This record gives sequence, C-alpha cells and structure tokens, in this order.
Amino acid sequence: MIENVVIIGAGNLATQLALALLENGIQVKQIFSRKVESARELAEKLNADFTNDLSKLNTDADLYVIAVKDSAIQEVLENLFLEETQLIVHTAGSVPMNVLDGFTRNYGVFYPLQTFSKTRKVDFSTIPICIEANHPSNLIKLQELAVKLSGSVHQITSDERKTLHLAAVFANNFVNHFYVMGAGILQDKKLNFDLLKPLILETAAKIESLRPLDAQTGPAKRNDQSIINAQIKMLRDKPEFQKIYSFVTESIFQFHQKQSHDLL
Amino acid sequence: MIENVVIIGAGNLATQLALALLENGIQVKQIFSRKVESARELAEKLNADFTNDLSKLNTDADLYVIAVKDSAIQEVLENLFLEETQLIVHTAGSVPMNVLDGFTRNYGVFYPLQTFSKTRKVDFSTIPICIEANHPSNLIKLQELAVKLSGSVHQITSDERKTLHLAAVFANNFVNHFYVMGAGILQDKKLNFDLLKPLILETAAKIESLRPLDAQTGPAKRNDQSIINAQIKMLRDKPEFQKIYSFVTESIFQFHQKQSHDLL
Repeated sequence: MIENVVIIGAGNLATQLALALLENGIQVKQIFSRKVESARELAEKLNADFTNDLSKLNTDADLYVIAVKDSAIQEVLENLFLEETQLIVHTAGSVPMNVLDGFTRNYGVFYPLQTFSKTRKVDFSTIPICIEANHPSNLIKLQELAVKLSGSVHQITSDERKTLHLAAVFANNFVNHFYVMGAGILQDKKLNFDLLKPLILETAAKIESLRPLDAQTGPAKRNDQSIINAQIKMLRDKPEFQKIYSFVTESIFQFHQKQSHDLL
Repeated sequence: MIENVVIIGAGNLATQLALALLENGIQVKQIFSRKVESARELAEKLNADFTNDLSKLNTDADLYVIAVKDSAIQEVLENLFLEETQLIVHTAGSVPMNVLDGFTRNYGVFYPLQTFSKTRKVDFSTIPICIEANHPSNLIKLQELAVKLSGSVHQITSDERKTLHLAAVFANNFVNHFYVMGAGILQDKKLNFDLLKPLILETAAKIESLRPLDAQTGPAKRNDQSIINAQIKMLRDKPEFQKIYSFVTESIFQFHQKQSHDLL
C-alpha cells in the first residue's frame, strides 16, 4: 500500500496533487524542483523536505511521481538514482507509459484529467484519474491510491490517454483561448468581461443536461449569412480572429447540416 | 409601469423569458408563434392566450416583446397592427434598435445575454440584461422591468450590443463547438464524454478567479512542438479539425509570445 510519496515537480499539477494527497492521508516526503524556491514554497505547505538535486532524492518512498512538463520527463529519468524496484509514475497525457521502461521494474501512469493552477484549489473527488501500470500488482497499488482521492478512477491505455489529452486540448486549452478572444473583443470597446461570465458558466453547465451537439445555437448553426458577414467585417482589425471565426463557423454549419442530413 | 406583456415568439429565449416574467409577477397575456402548436405549448405553461395570426394580437398590453430569430423581425414588424404608441422591444444582439423606428413611437431593446434552451431552466437573476430605448421614459419602464428579473441590468447602445453579441459567439457558440469536437474525438475511440465534463466545468469556473489569459495552459502556450505535431497527426482523418487545431494553436502561441514580449 502506498503511504508516502516523493513528488518530482512543483508546478500546477504537482502542487494540487500534493495537496490532495496530503488531505487524504498520504505523506508527501519530499518535493524536487530544479528551482529550489519553487520546491521550498510547495514543501512548506506540505511539511515536506525539498531539494533541487536529483542525486539527493529520498530513496525509500512508496511511490515517485514525476509531475514535470512532458519534455522534461526523459531528463528526470536519466538522472534518477533509485533502486530498480521502486515504483515510479508520470502524470502526462501524451507520454506513453513505456518511457519508464528500463529505469525501474515497477512503473505506471497516474493522469488526473483536469486543468490546474497553483493558486486555485480544485475538488479532486470528481476528477477522473486515469491509471495504467506495467504489472497487475502495481495497478492495484495505483488504484488503491487513486480511489482515496477521487470517485472517478479509470484504467486507461497509453493510446486512450493520448486521445483523452487531445480532446482535453480542444475542451480546455482551445476553449480558454476563445474566452481570451471574447475578452479581447470586449476590451477594444471598453466593455466589461464580467458581462460574459454568466454566459460562459451556463455554456459549460449545459453539458450536464444536453449533448453539446443539441446545445448548439447561434448564427453559424442557422447559417445566418447576414450576421456572419457583419461579424466578420467587425473583426477587420483582427485578421487572425477573422480567420478563426470563418473556419469555426464553417465547421459548425457543416456539422449541423450533416446531422440534419443524417436524420432524413 | 409594465404589468403585462405579449410575447411574439415561442423559441428558446421566448420560453425562458416568459417563464421568468411570470415568476416575477408580470402577466404574459398572449404568445404568438407562426406555429400554432409551439404557441399553444408555451401559452399553456403560462396560463396565457395564444395565436398564430398577428392580426389577432391582443392590442392592450403594456409591452410587446419580439423574440423571434433576427431574420424574422422585419416581417413581424410589417404585420403588426398596433396603436402607434405601444411599447415594442426586440431581444436580438445584432439588430440595431432603430429597425423599430417607424413602426411605433415607443420602442427599445431588451437583450438578455445568455444561452437558452426550451427545456433547461436558467436562473435569470444573474443574467446581464442589456436595455436600450428611444426615449428616457421608455428606458425607465424597461429598467423597472429588467430589475425585477435580474440584478445585472445595463444600459447598452446598439453598437455596444453588437460587440457583446460577437464576443458571445466566441464564448458560447464557438466554445460549444469545441465541446462537440472533443466529444467527437472521444467517440471515435469509444471513450466516454463524461470523462471530459469535470474539465469543461473547471475551465469555465476558472474565469471567476483568473483572467483567461492567465489561466491558459497546454502545448500551444508552451509551444511544445513534439506534442503539437503528434496531435495534428492524430487528426489525420479529420482535416477540418486539423485546420482548426493548427490555427488556434498558432493563435494561442502568438498571443502568449506577445504577452511575454510586452512584459519585457
């Protein structure tokens, strides 16, 4: 059973995961970050040790969680000096489990499908945690740990996780960029972004009761060319927004036309 | 003071507005819809009359609310047979107030900035209601009515409303299409859309505590070319998604590069 962990990383995910582990009775022994200040800051919240030197990593934790950006995982692994039986997981959506192969005999993935910030507390209990392991006994350990944090634990392959991450890029990163663009459009005319907030919240809340395809409304779906053309014209000073407006409008229209057609 | 209304339209907005009015002590005298069944269905919920014949419109209501799709407003106006002093408003984001000019001496706009479905009940009390009128006395009447429904009432010009509507298309219609695309990506691999729901809700909820620009995360912001290229490749069977992926990724990167640059 996993009773304590070392967390490698002190970013958004590392921070929120560490806090959730602590709240659920798992000891966080140590935080590693290349930046010693980041490591210290997080460690202090957890009453944990910290280091910025991988050779000084605590060597007897039940689990090592690599929660660094994808492109840094390989470098971390090459500089780990652990027993070859230690259980190591990474937390990345698009990195296959087998990058851990060769570095230890016990490994897996622990991927919480959520967007994290350092400062914003999240309720871990509803976050889907996608787990994968190289051996049934490791899977059981990760499963036992995951259910302490969340009521939504799923065994997911590396390929499935890649697909989830791609869908998450659409539903989170891209969606957030549309909030950014909406805010920019308002700012240019000195209108307050607060006016959009109830709409943004309701747009998201609707997915609880309606399929997104059924929830769609607006000029693109209706193919209301007079509004579409007027809005494209309004974006004349933002050619990049114009281009995105046109493509997304076209895509919405195609989708809904196809759907109507499928129903015939 | 407006004590009763006639509503022209029986769609999503007409339905939710009528229910909110009734709940707040305003009588809905009559519902008009070209489709008599739609008119009847809504009228029954309100204990109101209904008609599908504009020449049979109740002629002594305090307010006439035109809540039909933008492209039908003109036709409705041309077929109204009301006293020239009756107060008439439309509810459209992108239609200027002055389309009502010449049809009555008292007119305005009553635009609730929210996404509506017939079946999904919304809490009107937080919805921004944007009002405009051709005369201060009409503005006061609309203001008095609006504050009965919502704590967020704003006097907004037709030009500002057009900007709000454009921003709303980005933050609602386009965002919802990204949910549709995310759902489609999962469906192709038989993964459950429910897995994305906590992420979608948190992405929206974040705007309460973080500026969208500060909330951005992901491969596009980090310019992580290895993930970006892998994800574009994963979309090879969906050229339309691929195109949108590329443009939005590029736009996110540009935005955040510019922001970093501005901070130098």
